[in-house]
Amino acid sequence: MAGSDQAQDDLINPNDMPAVVLANPQMGENIGASARAMKNCGLHEMHIINPRDGWPNPAAVSMASGGSDILDHAIIHENSKDALAPFTLIAATTARRRGMAKETLSPREAAEKLVSHARAGGRPALLFGGERSGLDNEDVALADIIITAPLNPAFSSLNLGQAVLLAGWECRMAALSGVDAPQEDELIPAPSDKKQFFFNALETALSEGGFFSSPEMQPGVMRNIMAMYNRAGLTEQDLKTLHGMLKAIKRSNP
Amino acid sequence: MAGSDQAQDDLINPNDMPAVVLANPQMGENIGASARAMKNCGLHEMHIINPRDGWPNPAAVSMASGGSDILDHAIIHENSKDALAPFTLIAATTARRRGMAKETLSPREAAEKLVSHARAGGRPALLFGGERSGLDNEDVALADIIITAPLNPAFSSLNLGQAVLLAGWECRMAALSGVDAPQEDELIPAPSDKKQFFFNALETALSEGGFFSSPEMQPGVMRNIMAMYNRAGLTEQDLKTLHGMLKAIKRSNP
Repeated sequence: MAGSDQAQDDLINPNDMPAVVLANPQMGENIGASARAMKNCGLHEMHIINPRDGWPNPAAVSMASGGSDILDHAIIHENSKDALAPFTLIAATTARRRGMAKETLSPREAAEKLVSHARAGGRPALLFGGERSGLDNEDVALADIIITAPLNPAFSSLNLGQAVLLAGWECRMAALSGVDAPQEDELIPAPSDKKQFFFNALETALSEGGFFSSPEMQPGVMRNIMAMYNRAGLTEQDLKTLHGMLKAIKRSNP
Repeated sequence: MAGSDQAQDDLINPNDMPAVVLANPQMGENIGASARAMKNCGLHEMHIINPRDGWPNPAAVSMASGGSDILDHAIIHENSKDALAPFTLIAATTARRRGMAKETLSPREAAEKLVSHARAGGRPALLFGGERSGLDNEDVALADIIITAPLNPAFSSLNLGQAVLLAGWECRMAALSGVDAPQEDELIPAPSDKKQFFFNALETALSEGGFFSSPEMQPGVMRNIMAMYNRAGLTEQDLKTLHGMLKAIKRSNP
């Protein structure tokens, strides 16, 4: 994977670190600062959703300093569903509460979970919103957990590079402190795209069955349903079961 | 103190946080980013030694965002001895080893020590070097402990704002986690200026007595002597004793 050769002398295994996914970043300087912070902390895999100023971006390269190889290998996506598709534990960073029933952790608590998940064979990702408005609710709905840093309530807004540094630093410290070894019986959740496939099928069936009282309500109701399922840490086997249940229910008499 | 009114709704007591001392910073943007990071973490007292581009600096204000009140109250000094004079526990942040016999801690370990020191009634400070070359050896010699972050050895260079964020964040987390309460019998070290006064008297006596084999060696030898004394956590009473010892030895027969 990108950057792992440069990190070979590091004390931590780069594959124990989460990927970083930047949703709709605006300024190249902030993308570059994020790459630099990732490099400082030993993270290497960057994904960028729909960067406002196109890609590649010279302003990002000049800010990245020693982290420019991370930019060289960054993967560009058109939307968050595609970007998040392969990941099995997605942590969305937000400054404010979203009213979604998701586990909310500090960066320190989340870092232990992400590193432990990687060491158990999963693929964790950190999801960051753009400079102006952060993550939108559709992005947060795809996440399994929410990270909120207990900063000064009078001024809790971090810029993008600072947010990446803080989360990356905590993951690094978790890895260095030998966070709990994976348990034998730990279940690896399904990747995001397989969950999305089920949610789409479920939403279609619900819509056909007149479940949503109005089109305006539909996205919010679906986000709540997704949050409920995501809390369960669904495995691929669980999804097969759920698909089978959905088909059976559709075949049953109305 | 500066900013404490804005922080009144914070979960932590701003007086439990160390002051931040920036030595010879170059770009106003980095001073501003440092103020922003301090505000995020609930730190409020900033000192600046000899800023390259003068003061006040509009570039600092525009980067400080919600932390501009910290810049309004920042205190400007001409040299590090003056800037550090009131502090009783000084932590110098460095990316590389200095060959001085000082305790070297991670940001997390140092944060516990700094917050605990503040809660015991001491005045802790974090000392950061300028962008180009970091702290010089004369500055580090004034410090009691050294902070080095266990970052990726292939790229451990943080920019100034990132370094302030990382140290400030760890102090905040130490304060939030209720770091060990001060012990009744904890000795409060003397402020830096009183130690400097003794070191000056000692150096004069040593020089008069032909202690230094060459003028070139003198600064390095003095740094080692200061490091030895600083490890002892000298109190004001200790300094009185040392001054008395020095005078007595001078009066004794050669």
